[in-house]
Amino acid sequence: MYCVAIEDIKDAAIRIEGIAHRTPVLTSTSINQKAKRNLFFKVEAMQKTGSFKFRGALNAVKSVVSEQPDDEIMFVSHSSGNHAQALALAAKLSSQKATIVMPNNTPSVKKAAVADFGASIVIVENTNEAREDKATEIVNESGGVFVHPSEDPRVIAGQGTVCLEFLEQMGDIKLDVVIIPVGGGGLAAGNVMTLRSLQPGIKIILAEPSALDDAYRSFKEKTLLKHADDNKLESVADGLKTTLGPNTWPIIRDKVDSIFTVSEKEILQATKLIWERLKVMIEPSAGVGVAVALSEEFAHTYGNAHNVGIVLCGGNVDVVKIAAKMDQYAIDD
Amino acid sequence: MYCVAIEDIKDAAIRIEGIAHRTPVLTSTSINQKAKRNLFFKVEAMQKTGSFKFRGALNAVKSVVSEQPDDEIMFVSHSSGNHAQALALAAKLSSQKATIVMPNNTPSVKKAAVADFGASIVIVENTNEAREDKATEIVNESGGVFVHPSEDPRVIAGQGTVCLEFLEQMGDIKLDVVIIPVGGGGLAAGNVMTLRSLQPGIKIILAEPSALDDAYRSFKEKTLLKHADDNKLESVADGLKTTLGPNTWPIIRDKVDSIFTVSEKEILQATKLIWERLKVMIEPSAGVGVAVALSEEFAHTYGNAHNVGIVLCGGNVDVVKIAAKMDQYAIDD
Repeated sequence: MYCVAIEDIKDAAIRIEGIAHRTPVLTSTSINQKAKRNLFFKVEAMQKTGSFKFRGALNAVKSVVSEQPDDEIMFVSHSSGNHAQALALAAKLSSQKATIVMPNNTPSVKKAAVADFGASIVIVENTNEAREDKATEIVNESGGVFVHPSEDPRVIAGQGTVCLEFLEQMGDIKLDVVIIPVGGGGLAAGNVMTLRSLQPGIKIILAEPSALDDAYRSFKEKTLLKHADDNKLESVADGLKTTLGPNTWPIIRDKVDSIFTVSEKEILQATKLIWERLKVMIEPSAGVGVAVALSEEFAHTYGNAHNVGIVLCGGNVDVVKIAAKMDQYAIDD
Repeated sequence: MYCVAIEDIKDAAIRIEGIAHRTPVLTSTSINQKAKRNLFFKVEAMQKTGSFKFRGALNAVKSVVSEQPDDEIMFVSHSSGNHAQALALAAKLSSQKATIVMPNNTPSVKKAAVADFGASIVIVENTNEAREDKATEIVNESGGVFVHPSEDPRVIAGQGTVCLEFLEQMGDIKLDVVIIPVGGGGLAAGNVMTLRSLQPGIKIILAEPSALDDAYRSFKEKTLLKHADDNKLESVADGLKTTLGPNTWPIIRDKVDSIFTVSEKEILQATKLIWERLKVMIEPSAGVGVAVALSEEFAHTYGNAHNVGIVLCGGNVDVVKIAAKMDQYAIDD
């Protein structure tokens, strides 16, 4: 048994309808020529708060609120990134409160985005332990509800609505392969469940930076692994730094076809390609899936794939910083 | 009498249908909060070849081909930018040939884009005279058809389809104001004709960089002016360097409500805002219209405007270069 079933994902879709955006599916003739196949991009960068995270956070918040309709609820989580903004807005739109624990190295622009949505921010030391301890403390004191960024089944079910929409939007065109970036695995697990349930024969590939390859190594060893102790976790795809957990891992272990890794240079190249050709501002974490689709390894293994879907997971990016990295890596066209 | 009428624009829409993209209209809650009104963006950055120019080029090519269905036709123009790619692709898709005269300082990536579409390229000195002389020479020698980037009435009619679509896509929501960037004036003239014909009371504003203010000065003086001789034409909005001509000017003179200019810093700020919030990769020329909508002058003059449409004219941009400019101008969020 897995922590979510397709019914949970369909319920989530109903719960978030009309509040979360139905994000567009875009294509580019010139990218297709380069990839030598048709790539269909599901643009979660254009989701509210700039990433798919809003789906899961909203599903979690609305699930709790519908069970406790008369209560004032404090939603609590720890995140320096997209989940923080997503939960803050989801709580606000449901007239509830949120407190987000953020590490002390969080950029001020990210803190401002969360504060703009009316959430409280608690700053702690930049360790997993400090974050988790503080979140637990706040939950205990406030009687609040903790919403884990990737392990909460309501979050996983919400993320699974991405590919529910994607398959609907494709209409008569059948996707042979879908590529999904993997970090904590909430997006991956939810959508693997959706895809495997609705189109059992589809090939499902997860995409990960070589520098953050816990999912790749876990999948290879068939056992849940963390990052190696000496891994400095330095990647432009900073949204994928988190690791799989006990809820996301079994789904990924059992239902995914391949996990591919790509280099920093490949990620930056793919990100630039999407910026320049699709005209969509994605974050490098979203470029990871594109890089896989353009890789030799993909062509070698899935060369026959005609129609490939790629989830562009988010678009929250410090453009100036990433453009400087592109310059540094001498990424050209 | 003007060089185009609304009927020409409606004919153009039929001619280009199914080949040119029906580009999306996008909105952003956070941008609306910042602007204190609703901004609706017509995203021509997602048009084929990355700008609205494809509409006009395609209308010109298809008009000529339908009049001379049995001939092999050579289409000729001079352009270092978006019109070059647009005409090259329009000719290719109609199984015809194109020759583009480009100045010798054209970036190699732009030459490559034109060559990729199968057009011939002729390099000349970087003066208007050299370009025009060479284009005339080629037309004379080849018996080809010259398609001016902004003065050709078929081009102007094609560009006017942008707002034809835009008004349709808005459905029941009525735009109070539309803002259009102005360079050579093809986009402006065509869409001014469309808007004034279909919704006579709408306010029409053209947007121009202060550094390239020929349209602003012409409008103020009620006489067609070129750039001042000592104007170094240095703007990040390089797509707007060209000036109005005898076909575009009368429409603009008679039918526009205001022309506003904005600084380089305002253009870069607005461009960054669209990148980060709308998640669309626009070129700074498209940021010019956004900068006007966010300006104090606009709020002062059109403060009552509730729904404002903005044409995001193109998305062909050297991201690394423009991001470095943003850094240099200390553009923050």
